[in-house]
Amino acid sequence: MTTTYQRIVLASRPHGQVTPDNFRLETLPLPEIREGEILIRNRFLSLDPYMRGRMEESKSYAAPQPLNETMIGGTVGEVIASKHARFQTGDQVLGMFGWSEIGVSDGSLLRKLDTSRIPLSAYLGAVGMPGLTAWYGLTQIMSPKAGETVVVSAASGAVGSVVGQLARQRGCRVVGIAGGAEKCTYVVEELGFDACIDYKAGQLEADLAAATPDGIDAIFENVGGEIFDACLARMNPFGRIALCGMISGYNGEPVSIRNARVFLTMRLKMQGFIVSEHMDLWPQGLQELGTLVASGKLKFRESVAEGLASAPDAFIGLLKGKNFGKQLVRLS
Amino acid sequence: MTTTYQRIVLASRPHGQVTPDNFRLETLPLPEIREGEILIRNRFLSLDPYMRGRMEESKSYAAPQPLNETMIGGTVGEVIASKHARFQTGDQVLGMFGWSEIGVSDGSLLRKLDTSRIPLSAYLGAVGMPGLTAWYGLTQIMSPKAGETVVVSAASGAVGSVVGQLARQRGCRVVGIAGGAEKCTYVVEELGFDACIDYKAGQLEADLAAATPDGIDAIFENVGGEIFDACLARMNPFGRIALCGMISGYNGEPVSIRNARVFLTMRLKMQGFIVSEHMDLWPQGLQELGTLVASGKLKFRESVAEGLASAPDAFIGLLKGKNFGKQLVRLS
Repeated sequence: MTTTYQRIVLASRPHGQVTPDNFRLETLPLPEIREGEILIRNRFLSLDPYMRGRMEESKSYAAPQPLNETMIGGTVGEVIASKHARFQTGDQVLGMFGWSEIGVSDGSLLRKLDTSRIPLSAYLGAVGMPGLTAWYGLTQIMSPKAGETVVVSAASGAVGSVVGQLARQRGCRVVGIAGGAEKCTYVVEELGFDACIDYKAGQLEADLAAATPDGIDAIFENVGGEIFDACLARMNPFGRIALCGMISGYNGEPVSIRNARVFLTMRLKMQGFIVSEHMDLWPQGLQELGTLVASGKLKFRESVAEGLASAPDAFIGLLKGKNFGKQLVRLS
Repeated sequence: MTTTYQRIVLASRPHGQVTPDNFRLETLPLPEIREGEILIRNRFLSLDPYMRGRMEESKSYAAPQPLNETMIGGTVGEVIASKHARFQTGDQVLGMFGWSEIGVSDGSLLRKLDTSRIPLSAYLGAVGMPGLTAWYGLTQIMSPKAGETVVVSAASGAVGSVVGQLARQRGCRVVGIAGGAEKCTYVVEELGFDACIDYKAGQLEADLAAATPDGIDAIFENVGGEIFDACLARMNPFGRIALCGMISGYNGEPVSIRNARVFLTMRLKMQGFIVSEHMDLWPQGLQELGTLVASGKLKFRESVAEGLASAPDAFIGLLKGKNFGKQLVRLS
């Protein structure tokens, strides 16, 4: 057993685009655990767009990531030592140990995972925070009825792919928006969306019109900017918008809504949300998501970067849409 | 009794700003009523910003106003002849007879009014559609709690003045936005708002910051554009926005939202609405509004233009904010 481990800290805040030198890889001695504590070797680290927001000092929904501390992040791993009654060596667990090979817990925020029918990494994706985000936005804000048209941006991603599949199962016409022909093919052929628009093809408005002949009743928005504007222009009366992300503006550019009058003329409802503020509904969401994944009815795809040192580049790629499905880092 | 009456029809659709030649005054013979019909002499015509939208042919929540037909509008008046069992000469009634001195009804959309404690004209304002609009947005979308800060744009107008007074009665801190010192003084001293900001004074953001030291929890939005942007920048988490109008864009300019990210970072909810789609709640709203007006606890102010021929200029003035309180036209 090694006596050291690695972690990545935030070395500096980005000015505009995130760069590798915003991060610093550090080697530390393996910690000793005390009575009541658990030592975890993390197997996978989850990379998610929300991390970009935490790198800023500006007013947002969460405290900023402190400089020189381990970058925040969800992890799944294995207990390698335990002085806690409820956890044993070999237990597989979900935690928030960040960009680090090792975690120490007192058990309070640690969840034991059953990997007999659900793969370990899925607890960071379709049966984890991204899946819950999809489930919450769809069921609590968009509330689509069978036959309605639902549009999902970033459709091949960890969140969008779940939104679309859940909406299909509720009888909706589901149209995805993704970047590139390969992602679009995957969204339609593997995930079962009715259509997927490649926003990089240069004819977003025309393609969207063709794919939504009856207009749009609900949007799950991950991107903002021009893509969102194009969707808004096709909204039907009483449309609902779950606002989950605005990745088009993560580098600090203001993200505008070009024509806001449609909110009035079409009596739209838009709601921003953060799934971590609705933990009372997690058991209900996880029940549905877990059952679907275990039975093969909810598909997902992962982009796995190898080794902690690859995390900064993988994260920068995620912000540019280079990932394909849920972005993970395999730590050991 | 005269044998003719006057009405105003839409002569042409505006290109940009509304002009007097978009309207045409016509003189017609007084109609004969048949069995089951009622003849009404309208006393007051209501002028409202929504009429601007109807003058367009573009996609909106309502069918456009047809050319060469009587301009749409709410009216209160008096029955001058009746061949209907439920109505008698002298009854005071609310109808939608438009920009016209006369109305003919089969009784189906005609409502008898009790003017013993509520003035006739108030049924076009605080106890009418504008009042219900205020009541609906406040109670059904903004749902403010005592102690929260509520901001109301177009605060001295028919809708905004009611929003603010209802919010004050619910224990909120209420800040209005209006154009000019005279309106602002009225909003604070007569209507009892905690503060009112003159957006024409040229320091909207600083004045708003001073008037909302604890941020903003709910907005009743009538204007859109820069005023709305300034309010959005001060929203607290879980803020609610009732979107009632965007008068800043009634001439066809797109109304943008400059920084939409706040909807995400502050988890805001925004909902556009049209009160006429929620008639199930009207009795409840009218009950509260009528009781408050009858007991003097809900104040309102009227700008009254004299004679049907003055309606076009009064309407153009309304769109420019020249009215002070509810804009009416006295017809006879």
